[in-house]
Amino acid sequence: MSELSGKSIIGFRRGEPNVDSFRAVNPLSGEELTPEYYAASEAEVDQAVQLASRAFEVYRQTSPKLKAAFLRKIAENIEGLGEPLVTRATDETALPPVRIRNETARTCNQLRLFAELIEEGSWVDARIDRGDPMRQPLAKPDVRSMLRPLGPVVVFCASNFPLAFSVAGGDTASALAAGNPVVVKAHRAHPGTAELVGLAVSDALRASDLPEGVFSLLFGRGEDIGMQLVRHPQIKAGGFTGSRSGGQALMHAAAARPEPIPFYAEMSSVNPIFLFPDALREREEQIAIGLHASVTLGAGQFCTNPGLVFLPTGADSAGLIERLKEMMASTAAFTIGLFRTCVDSFLADTNLSAEVFGPATLLVTYSDVEQLPDIARKLEGQLTATIHATDAEQDGVNKLIDVIENKAGRIVFNGFPTGVEVCHSMVHGGPFPATSDGRSTSVGTRAALRFVRPFCYQDVPAIALPDELKDGNPLNIWRMVDGELNKAALSDMTFGC
Amino acid sequence: MSELSGKSIIGFRRGEPNVDSFRAVNPLSGEELTPEYYAASEAEVDQAVQLASRAFEVYRQTSPKLKAAFLRKIAENIEGLGEPLVTRATDETALPPVRIRNETARTCNQLRLFAELIEEGSWVDARIDRGDPMRQPLAKPDVRSMLRPLGPVVVFCASNFPLAFSVAGGDTASALAAGNPVVVKAHRAHPGTAELVGLAVSDALRASDLPEGVFSLLFGRGEDIGMQLVRHPQIKAGGFTGSRSGGQALMHAAAARPEPIPFYAEMSSVNPIFLFPDALREREEQIAIGLHASVTLGAGQFCTNPGLVFLPTGADSAGLIERLKEMMASTAAFTIGLFRTCVDSFLADTNLSAEVFGPATLLVTYSDVEQLPDIARKLEGQLTATIHATDAEQDGVNKLIDVIENKAGRIVFNGFPTGVEVCHSMVHGGPFPATSDGRSTSVGTRAALRFVRPFCYQDVPAIALPDELKDGNPLNIWRMVDGELNKAALSDMTFGC
Repeated sequence: MSELSGKSIIGFRRGEPNVDSFRAVNPLSGEELTPEYYAASEAEVDQAVQLASRAFEVYRQTSPKLKAAFLRKIAENIEGLGEPLVTRATDETALPPVRIRNETARTCNQLRLFAELIEEGSWVDARIDRGDPMRQPLAKPDVRSMLRPLGPVVVFCASNFPLAFSVAGGDTASALAAGNPVVVKAHRAHPGTAELVGLAVSDALRASDLPEGVFSLLFGRGEDIGMQLVRHPQIKAGGFTGSRSGGQALMHAAAARPEPIPFYAEMSSVNPIFLFPDALREREEQIAIGLHASVTLGAGQFCTNPGLVFLPTGADSAGLIERLKEMMASTAAFTIGLFRTCVDSFLADTNLSAEVFGPATLLVTYSDVEQLPDIARKLEGQLTATIHATDAEQDGVNKLIDVIENKAGRIVFNGFPTGVEVCHSMVHGGPFPATSDGRSTSVGTRAALRFVRPFCYQDVPAIALPDELKDGNPLNIWRMVDGELNKAALSDMTFGC
Repeated sequence: MSELSGKSIIGFRRGEPNVDSFRAVNPLSGEELTPEYYAASEAEVDQAVQLASRAFEVYRQTSPKLKAAFLRKIAENIEGLGEPLVTRATDETALPPVRIRNETARTCNQLRLFAELIEEGSWVDARIDRGDPMRQPLAKPDVRSMLRPLGPVVVFCASNFPLAFSVAGGDTASALAAGNPVVVKAHRAHPGTAELVGLAVSDALRASDLPEGVFSLLFGRGEDIGMQLVRHPQIKAGGFTGSRSGGQALMHAAAARPEPIPFYAEMSSVNPIFLFPDALREREEQIAIGLHASVTLGAGQFCTNPGLVFLPTGADSAGLIERLKEMMASTAAFTIGLFRTCVDSFLADTNLSAEVFGPATLLVTYSDVEQLPDIARKLEGQLTATIHATDAEQDGVNKLIDVIENKAGRIVFNGFPTGVEVCHSMVHGGPFPATSDGRSTSVGTRAALRFVRPFCYQDVPAIALPDELKDGNPLNIWRMVDGELNKAALSDMTFGC
């Protein structure tokens, strides 16, 4: 691991040693890991942002093809890190090697999915309304618009995903894909993993002939450099996955700036599971196994960890509860929390619906499925809600879905919320406090939409238009022309039809 | 005008008389207009929101076809108001009847454009990623998602557009189109116009058999009922067009709620115009006429009123300045402000780039077009920026556009920013402080995207899916299926290709 220097990556330079330093700790052995990590100074944070701001002038105009090649090169470089990455990440997190390998694969797949997205190109929502100089009483202008990047984005690494939600994770991939430079704040729990991945990104940037400042990686405390980054006038958006208190502090700082910026914090979710009686009778063993696996997956630290399970009272659920107890008692290495209450106590005490981060689950027994919509109405915003039911229970299910559509970002049917599929249609988001901005997702290709805004060109000469809006449609993307979606060149279309 | 009662419209009921009342004033004569308008009480505000919240349960599931018919019925009813609307609106605003008629037409066209949008239906961004139970190492779930409405929206009427940005204006039309009930706060300058249009909306609601509470209209002060509405837990988003101080107070209240909500305030823009020397030499008279018309249009109260004009110093601009002075001196009825300074003074005094609401324009002379990008970099966020230049000046133009793309929502070439075309590609928005949220537009069909969020269905049975996501594509909309855009039914597609 001779590559690790403990210094921030500031453009193509490295940060300076500093009295403010820390080391990663192996959570299993308690042993401190070398090297010493130096917190970026205020001046270094500013340098990283200034470099990002200058790099934006070039990067925002970089062709989709070149940006896609850059993203693929990052993936290739991360894969090239091989076993030393697995060793360091397992040392820093105590997660098993197979989990680190899977998460690395997911991270690289994600980078390649965004590469495909921007290479295909239609995601920019290009729209053209052709002008009509003869229109009465006023000539109609030629109006064209598309989504353009916002500017430098700060990304906060998450404690629970050292790869997929960290240095080159979803926030970074989507911000870079959308044309924004990224300044990453490493998480103190896994700085070595961050440095290895950061160097992979930095090398990809150099190899792609893109400007210094498109990527920087800073070590230090959230309260210090995190706040400095969110408040920096040249930072134009932010992404965060972590605790409710941390996320709220940052989102309020973003909103209180002289120029407020979008800040996407994914914070807190208990991911309720609603078990209907028939489903439980038909599939008790299957549900017990799935629930146990979902609760304990990744030490229960997944954002979509199910922290609340609603199940029928009495004999209907006795078997499931016994099976869960058995399985949890035999789960090695983690202390498992399995708590129980009934609907009335649950509704009377709002603390019971608060998130417990880790493998803890509260079982809440109900006496009648008619209670479920009311229970759901009382919940805060969630990333997910899960229903297990049979076809015969569809009426009750429909009533519950009506409520859940206003409470969560995703509903899962007869499955489990952990294991978020990275695809075009995925929504990993939800109403506050699941996230700071329920209009968005941090997983799936819609994530790129968080870091753009529409920009409009009225009667602008062809030479000054982006390729996406030129008459000939040189990038061959889907565009909305006079209200119709097509891939045509304007010269091939009949005017005014 | 016997229809006017001075009472708020709370669902299908009317508000109560109240000691807290006011009258509209004819700005020309200073005369108070009848009737007395009663401020909604705290309890009435709450009733309106509770009704909206209940109505949302039905309205969010209302078919696009029925919602479209409702929007068209509103337009028809507003047109049906005829001359009494023109009379009341001119009495309240002193705007000429032709302006009121044009604005009424624009308002109704806008409602019909949103009706078309939702009837066509593809705007919901439906996405389907088909499952694969055989995938290794894990089965791939069936994942589908689309945009869904947020919930009750508060809309603030604007002083400067009594129709197009008021009771049934762009914010209301886009929020209703997207499936959200609307609670409108009337502007104190034109309550009679608001009541007439409010009754037209209310009648359309009843005629469409839609639930009470999809629309309410409240009279009263922004500091009181406006704040109460923005802070109400059942309000899920807001739209505002008005002053920077008013907009900022509301946007900060929205961000400081226990559950923060999206708030779209369109506030402050000086809409700079950059005149290049060749263009001025070639088209001096045309530019003078256009600029004069744009500055004085609507008493200079358009959001896109050009408040800053950059023009070459010395002989190049002497003729234009003389012509502008002549035309402005002969413009009746308004006091016109035409101020002058040079680039150095302008850059030295940030006050000079602040908005003066009304027909006032600051002419700033520059000595070299190379100064223009630096000038643009110093400006705050704008709704629009305008360039007049010839083909020979394209190099300088490109450098300026590079900066403007980060400073404004729309660039206008060889034209003027007033007269916003209502179409799919229009962007009437821009970086702060032009708006509170530069990711959006308040004019054009993209405005509906402000009031929705993505929602995701994983392995949900067909019967519980919205029509937009059903296998057969019964609404015949464009959907992204496994990453490809098409209108196909899933049964017509080959799996896994």
